[in-house]
Amino acid sequence: MAQGQVFVLSGPPGSGKSTVGARVRQACQDLAFSVSYTTRGPRPGEADGVDYHFIGRQQFLNKLAQGEMVEHVEVYGNLYGTSRQAIAQTVEGGRDLFLDIEVKGGAALKQAFPQGVFIFLVPPSPQELERRLRGRGTESEDKIKERLARVAFELAAARDYTHLVVNDVLDLAVADVLAIIHGDRLRAHRRFPELRRIWGV
Amino acid sequence: MAQGQVFVLSGPPGSGKSTVGARVRQACQDLAFSVSYTTRGPRPGEADGVDYHFIGRQQFLNKLAQGEMVEHVEVYGNLYGTSRQAIAQTVEGGRDLFLDIEVKGGAALKQAFPQGVFIFLVPPSPQELERRLRGRGTESEDKIKERLARVAFELAAARDYTHLVVNDVLDLAVADVLAIIHGDRLRAHRRFPELRRIWGV
Repeated sequence: MAQGQVFVLSGPPGSGKSTVGARVRQACQDLAFSVSYTTRGPRPGEADGVDYHFIGRQQFLNKLAQGEMVEHVEVYGNLYGTSRQAIAQTVEGGRDLFLDIEVKGGAALKQAFPQGVFIFLVPPSPQELERRLRGRGTESEDKIKERLARVAFELAAARDYTHLVVNDVLDLAVADVLAIIHGDRLRAHRRFPELRRIWGV
Repeated sequence: MAQGQVFVLSGPPGSGKSTVGARVRQACQDLAFSVSYTTRGPRPGEADGVDYHFIGRQQFLNKLAQGEMVEHVEVYGNLYGTSRQAIAQTVEGGRDLFLDIEVKGGAALKQAFPQGVFIFLVPPSPQELERRLRGRGTESEDKIKERLARVAFELAAARDYTHLVVNDVLDLAVADVLAIIHGDRLRAHRRFPELRRIWGV
């Protein structure tokens, strides 16, 4: 059996990676996903074990010390991390895995899974990004300024990604990500088992 | 300006590469195409300069001697060839080029454009391929046998391709090829000019 692929969707805050990610998972229900661990509290509507594993800071640090996190990042005082074992088991079992994650987390995943597909989601323009961050209504003015200042820095990280998608019209951005996943699944080395099965070659 | 990409669709006779190729060009009208040269006579409905450049054998051999053919192949006594200059000019001008071509021609194009996307179209099963070749009604029984005998050999060439598409249901095969093209156009190195334009990074 061929190994599964790791698909990572990342982008600066406000790029819409969570929204696009949710739509992609809905459209591609055979994609496995990794639920991240975080020490931040749940936002309205978020469920434990679904959106994140919400855990305490000490519990998170223990997992870190045990090397259980393939990546972790601290954002605005909150820790976020991804379980190395969960990803490895999924991929080795032949399933494709899809994650949306912060830019720093994406870079760490690139180190751990260099053969993966890394999709960088770009907000349509500086003006539109600012509008989205304010529209979210969950961030203070200081945090918005801080995030905007980080965007240019985070866009530089795009050079380590394999694909770039501009999130101007949501439906098109979702279609772009789906085409990238679909196209990757048709790569020859992944299809040889099927070719052998059909044609015996 | 980023260089254009070379997309090549190939497969054994009867895989349906011409049908799929026509549908892909219809759906992606910004794809440039290369009209091949051939010494065989036009089939009913084929037009000179559109389906092929139909030329005489001596004229073809002259082009070959002048190194004008990036690839050429002799199939059942007829020569087929692709103009090197036409491809290079298109790609250097920033346009994507799409070709459907015989398996041997595809291998020669892979040598000339190793960074290209090479899609191998696989007939759904040995039984279905035979049915298609007979259904075409343009080949003698001997030629059908000859072609079927070559399929296993030609399928071995699939290992040099970047992508494999099984042509079972035509619409799905077309969608597969379109996803591969779409996905490749979203590769990061092709999008950096747009990122710079929007974000000034």
